[in-house]
Amino acid sequence: MSSNDALPTTLEALEAEIAVQTARFNELRLNTDKTVATPEALADAKNRLADLKKALGKAKSAGKEKIPKAEGAAPAPAAQGEKKKERLLLKTAKGTRDYGPAETFCRDHIERIVKEVFTSFGASCLDTPVFERKDVLTDKYGEDSKLIFDLKDQGGEELALRYDHTVPLARYLAMNGGTVTHHKIWQIGKVYRRDNPVVSKGRMREFSQADIDIAGVWDSMVPDAEVISLVCTILSNLDVGEFTIKLNNRKILDGIFEVCGVPAEKIRTISSAVDKLDKAPWSEVKREMTEEKGLDPAVADKIGEYVKHKGGPSLLETLTADSTLMSNKRAREGVDEMAILFKYLNAYQVVDKISFDLSLARGLDYYTGIIYEAVVAASAPPGFIDAPASSAPAPAAPSSSSSTPAAPESSQSKKKSSSSKKPTQAEDDEPEVDPNQVGVGSIAAGGRYDNLVTSFLAGAAGLSPTSKEYKKLPHVPCVGVSIGMDRIFALVWPRWAEKFGYTLDPATGAIVGGGGRSKETMVYVMSAGDGLLEERISLVQLLRSGGIKADFLAKTKPKLSAQFAAGEKDEVPFAIILGSDELKEGYVTVKKQSWEVAEGKRVKIESADKGEKVKRDELVEWLKGSDVWRGWVERRWV
Amino acid sequence: MSSNDALPTTLEALEAEIAVQTARFNELRLNTDKTVATPEALADAKNRLADLKKALGKAKSAGKEKIPKAEGAAPAPAAQGEKKKERLLLKTAKGTRDYGPAETFCRDHIERIVKEVFTSFGASCLDTPVFERKDVLTDKYGEDSKLIFDLKDQGGEELALRYDHTVPLARYLAMNGGTVTHHKIWQIGKVYRRDNPVVSKGRMREFSQADIDIAGVWDSMVPDAEVISLVCTILSNLDVGEFTIKLNNRKILDGIFEVCGVPAEKIRTISSAVDKLDKAPWSEVKREMTEEKGLDPAVADKIGEYVKHKGGPSLLETLTADSTLMSNKRAREGVDEMAILFKYLNAYQVVDKISFDLSLARGLDYYTGIIYEAVVAASAPPGFIDAPASSAPAPAAPSSSSSTPAAPESSQSKKKSSSSKKPTQAEDDEPEVDPNQVGVGSIAAGGRYDNLVTSFLAGAAGLSPTSKEYKKLPHVPCVGVSIGMDRIFALVWPRWAEKFGYTLDPATGAIVGGGGRSKETMVYVMSAGDGLLEERISLVQLLRSGGIKADFLAKTKPKLSAQFAAGEKDEVPFAIILGSDELKEGYVTVKKQSWEVAEGKRVKIESADKGEKVKRDELVEWLKGSDVWRGWVERRWV
Repeated sequence: MSSNDALPTTLEALEAEIAVQTARFNELRLNTDKTVATPEALADAKNRLADLKKALGKAKSAGKEKIPKAEGAAPAPAAQGEKKKERLLLKTAKGTRDYGPAETFCRDHIERIVKEVFTSFGASCLDTPVFERKDVLTDKYGEDSKLIFDLKDQGGEELALRYDHTVPLARYLAMNGGTVTHHKIWQIGKVYRRDNPVVSKGRMREFSQADIDIAGVWDSMVPDAEVISLVCTILSNLDVGEFTIKLNNRKILDGIFEVCGVPAEKIRTISSAVDKLDKAPWSEVKREMTEEKGLDPAVADKIGEYVKHKGGPSLLETLTADSTLMSNKRAREGVDEMAILFKYLNAYQVVDKISFDLSLARGLDYYTGIIYEAVVAASAPPGFIDAPASSAPAPAAPSSSSSTPAAPESSQSKKKSSSSKKPTQAEDDEPEVDPNQVGVGSIAAGGRYDNLVTSFLAGAAGLSPTSKEYKKLPHVPCVGVSIGMDRIFALVWPRWAEKFGYTLDPATGAIVGGGGRSKETMVYVMSAGDGLLEERISLVQLLRSGGIKADFLAKTKPKLSAQFAAGEKDEVPFAIILGSDELKEGYVTVKKQSWEVAEGKRVKIESADKGEKVKRDELVEWLKGSDVWRGWVERRWV
Repeated sequence: MSSNDALPTTLEALEAEIAVQTARFNELRLNTDKTVATPEALADAKNRLADLKKALGKAKSAGKEKIPKAEGAAPAPAAQGEKKKERLLLKTAKGTRDYGPAETFCRDHIERIVKEVFTSFGASCLDTPVFERKDVLTDKYGEDSKLIFDLKDQGGEELALRYDHTVPLARYLAMNGGTVTHHKIWQIGKVYRRDNPVVSKGRMREFSQADIDIAGVWDSMVPDAEVISLVCTILSNLDVGEFTIKLNNRKILDGIFEVCGVPAEKIRTISSAVDKLDKAPWSEVKREMTEEKGLDPAVADKIGEYVKHKGGPSLLETLTADSTLMSNKRAREGVDEMAILFKYLNAYQVVDKISFDLSLARGLDYYTGIIYEAVVAASAPPGFIDAPASSAPAPAAPSSSSSTPAAPESSQSKKKSSSSKKPTQAEDDEPEVDPNQVGVGSIAAGGRYDNLVTSFLAGAAGLSPTSKEYKKLPHVPCVGVSIGMDRIFALVWPRWAEKFGYTLDPATGAIVGGGGRSKETMVYVMSAGDGLLEERISLVQLLRSGGIKADFLAKTKPKLSAQFAAGEKDEVPFAIILGSDELKEGYVTVKKQSWEVAEGKRVKIESADKGEKVKRDELVEWLKGSDVWRGWVERRWV
C-alpha cells in the first residue's frame, strides 16, 4: 500500500491503519539494508502516517455522529473493498487497558508497599476466584447489582465476575463454617463493574483493589483502630500527598435520624440523601429529602443542624452535651464507641489525619458501626489537570465517597444517580465520561459490617432473617477497608513519570515519549571484539546464578555501540565489557552508568570513567559490594 | 435446631448444614460462658455434626444418581419445609477454588522464585485485562475454542475470558504497531478454560500461568536457548524434583512427514496423531493415522521409524547422516537450527536436562520452529498418590503434553479426544474426573511462533493471509514458554505441608489438620500484667514503622497465656513481654521461639530461655541484629 492509497473512512479503520503504518515506518527506519530503506521510502511512509493521523484528528473532532462507527454487530465497511476482509478491532474491551512495562514497574512499586504494610500488620493472604456462582452475589449490592458482569450460560452454573473482595471473603468465612475467626486477611486482585469508565482517573471496568479485613470477636474498637491506622500507614508510605480520613459511625447517624423524627422505614433512604452532601449543597439534599422522599421539612432542618458538624475528638463533647441525642440508645452507644476509638487512635498517633464528619453516611446497607473513607487534597493530580478545560463551566467533580466497603470505584454511577442517567445496555457503546469533569475521588473506603457472614450461613441453612433460628447462627463480625489501587496509580504515576523522564499525554496519562528504566536488570554484558557470544552467555549465567540480574544482546557479533545502546535503553547500572585477551587473564572491565532527568528528558550522566578491571571469579562479590548495587537493592532510587 | 432435627436429604443441603453446624459447635466450644456451653450442649452439637457427616458419607457413596442434586435451575427441596427458604449453595464455581492463608503462603513462595528468575533474565512485566473482545480470541485455539468462557451479552461488546497469555500478548504487540520489538516480557495471572477439572492435580477452570516471551528479530536460536535455560533455572530453583525438557523442531517434523510421503494437506492432522505417542502405543497411533485419517500404511511405518528417536545432541549426527531427510529443505533448516541451539545450551550448561525427542509434536498450528515441554519424574507426587486405588485397573495416565504454547493445562480434553467424549454443555454438571487416574502432566510448555503478531496486524488491516499485502506487514517473531503455576503448586504443596506439619487429605490435597506458619509476622507483643493495651499498640507501631512485622492480641486485658497461644498459632519467632515496672525503666523482655515437626506434627521447641531484657529504644536494632531475624529475612526457613 503506498501513501497514495485512499484513506479509510471509519475511526476504527483509521486507528488500525495507523498501527500498521507505524509498524511499517519503524521497521523501515531500523532496517540496515539501505537499498530497501531509501530516503524516498522513508519519506513516503512518514507522509502516509501523517495523512492518516490528520484524518483521524479530523474524524474525531467532527464528532462520532458524523463518522460511521464499527462497533458490535455492525462491521466496518472495508475501506478498499475487494481485497479486504472484515477488519479486526485491535483494542482492549471498554473500560479495560493494558499496563505496559513502564506502568507495571510503577504499579509493582505501589503493590509492594501495600503488601508490606498488610503483612506488617499481621495479616494472611486469601485468593478467591475471579468469578462466583451468581447467587453468592445476589442481593448484596442493592441497585448497583445491574453493574455486575455476568458470564454467558454455557451449560452448568450461573456465574458472574466478582464485584468486590468483601462478598467473596464473607462467602469464604461462611464456607469455613465461621471457624476462621480472629483473622486478619488481605486480598489484592481485580474486580469488575459495568460502570462508565474514566480511564485516566483510574476509574475502570476492571480495576484492582487491595483489601484487608479483621474478622472475629475482639474487644470493642481495637480492630477498628488497627484498620484506620493501617490505611494511614499505607497512604503515608505511598506518598500520595496530604490525605484525610473522613470518619463517622452508623449508630450515631441512625440515632440522629431517630431523634430528629425520621420514620424507621425512611432511615436508609434519608441516609443516602445525606451521603450526597460532599458534592451537593444542603438546599439540594433537603429538597431530595422533602420533595422526593416526603420527609417533613422541620425534620430535615433538624438533620441539617447535626450533619454540618465535623472536626476532631472534641466533637464528642458537643455530642455528649446534647441530652436529646444522648437519650437515644444507639447514638449513645455510637458516641461511646467513638470515644474509645479516639483513645486508641491516639496511641497509634494518627488522630491528626482524622476528620470526624457527621455528614459521612456511605451508601451500602450492611454497615453496622464505624464508616470511613480516605480522600487526598489533590484529587486531580499534576499531569492530569493541565488538559484543556471544556468551554462550558465544568460541573462540580463527582463525590469522593463510595457505596460499598470494597468500592471506591463505584462512586460515579452512585453519586450521579439523582442528577443524571444510569448506564443502561443501550448506553454501553457511549464514549468515556470526560476525564476533566471527574476527580480521582476517594482512594480507600470501608467500615464495620457485623452481619454479612451470618447472612451467608443463614442462606445456606435456608433460614429467613426473621426466623428464630437466624439469631442462633454463628456471629463473625468484620471490619475492613478497600484500597483503590488504580486510583492510587493515577495519583502516583504522573510523579513517577516525571522522575523517570516520561512525557505523558495530559488528557489520558498515556506515555507519548521519553522515559527510562522499566526493569530490574543490573548488569549488561558486552563484548569488545569478536562476538564472544558463548563467553557472554557463560558470564551472564554466572551472574544470574549469583543472584545478579543480567542481560546481553542476542546477536552473534554485535557492535559495541549497539550493545551500549541496548543496555542504556534499560538504564542498566553496570556495563561489563569482555575482551579476548582480558578474559584469558581472568579479568573483565566494569563501568558504572547513571542517568538523570534534565529539561524533562532522561539523559545519561557522562563520566570520564574508563572502567575498572575486575577478576571474573570475584565479579559477583565485587558488584554486590558496590554502593551502586546497595542503592538499587534498597530501592533508594524510587 | 437441635440434634433431633430431621437430616437434610440432598448432598448440598447436607454440606450446608455441616458448615453451619461446624460453626455452631466451634463457637460453643470457644464460649467461655459455661452456663451456655454446657457439657450437654457440646455433646448435642457434636452428635448432630457426626450424624450429618455420616449422612453425607452415605449419600456420597450411594452415588449421585440416588441423591437428588440441587444444581442450576432445580432448587433443593427445603429439608424442613415450612420455615426454610431456598438454600444458597455455599461453594465456589466448578473448577475454581479458594486458596487460604496456608496455601497462599506457599504459592507466594513459588511466585517469588518465578518472578525473580524472570527479572534476572532481563524481562519487563505486562498486565493485560482478564477479558478480551471475543474476536481477538477467535480462530486461535482450533477445536479447543469451545472451552472459552464467554461473558453474557449485556449490551455493547462481545467479550470472553482470556484463554492464555500468548494471544493477549500478541494483541498487545500488534496494538503497539509492532514497535515493541526486542523485548522480553513476562506475565503472571489467571486464565480460563471450561475444561473438566481435576482440582487436586492443579487442573482447574481458573488457573494461574506464568509466561515469558522474547519478541523481535534476533540472531538465530539465541532467544530460543535463553528461554529453555530460563525454564531449567526456574524448575531447579523450585525444587520440583528431577525434570526433563522434551525438545523438538517443527521444521524437522514437517520435513520428516514430507520425505515419508504425507500429503501436504494431512501434515497437521498426522502431526496431531504423533503428539499422542507419549500416552498411546505406536500401534494405536498408526491405526489413527491409517484407519481414521486415511494415510498409506507404508508411509505410517516410515514415520514410525523416525519418531522413535530420542536422545541428546548426538541424534543430530544420525539425522545429518540421513541423506533422504537432508534433501528436504525444511528438515535441513531444522537440523541446522538444532545444532546451533545445542551449542548455546552447552554454554548455558543445561544440555543434560534436554531430551531431543522426535515424537514431540504439540497440538497448536501456529508453532514455526522449536517446541518443548517440561515434565517431572513424579507427576503424581507423594501426598496425592496414596489415595485408594480404584478397583478396576487404572487406565494409563493422560499425557503430559499440551496443546497450546501457553497451555499446559489444556492437555486433558485434547489428549482424551480419540478415546473419550469431549465436555459438552450437558456434561458440565458432571463431577470431576477421578484424580487418581490423572497425572500432574507437563508443568511448562512453549515454542517459537513467528506469525501470530502479524496475523493480528493483518486482521486489523483487513488483509487476508493470501493477499500480496500480507507479506509486507511487519514481522515480530516470538518464542516463549508458559509455566503452569497450579501444577507446580500441586507438586510443591505436599512437601511444603510436610515441612510445616500440615495433615492433608490424600485425595484432594486439602488441609485437614495440623500446620504452622502462614504469615510473615516476626514479633508478638504481650503484656504481663494489667492489659497495657495502649502501651502494646504504641510498641507495635514503633516496630512496624521500623520495618518489623508485629502484632498483638486485640483485647484490653488478655491473659498472658492467651497472648502466648495467639503468637504461637502463627509461629511468631519473637515474643516481647511488657511489664509496667520494666517499661518505666525503659526495658522490655524478648523471648525467641522456634518450632519443629515431630511425628508429623508441628510442635514448639521448649527452651529454658527466660528471655532477655532489651532497651525499648534499641529494640529495632537488637531484633534486626539477631541470627533468627536474618534467617527469616533470607527465607532460610523455606
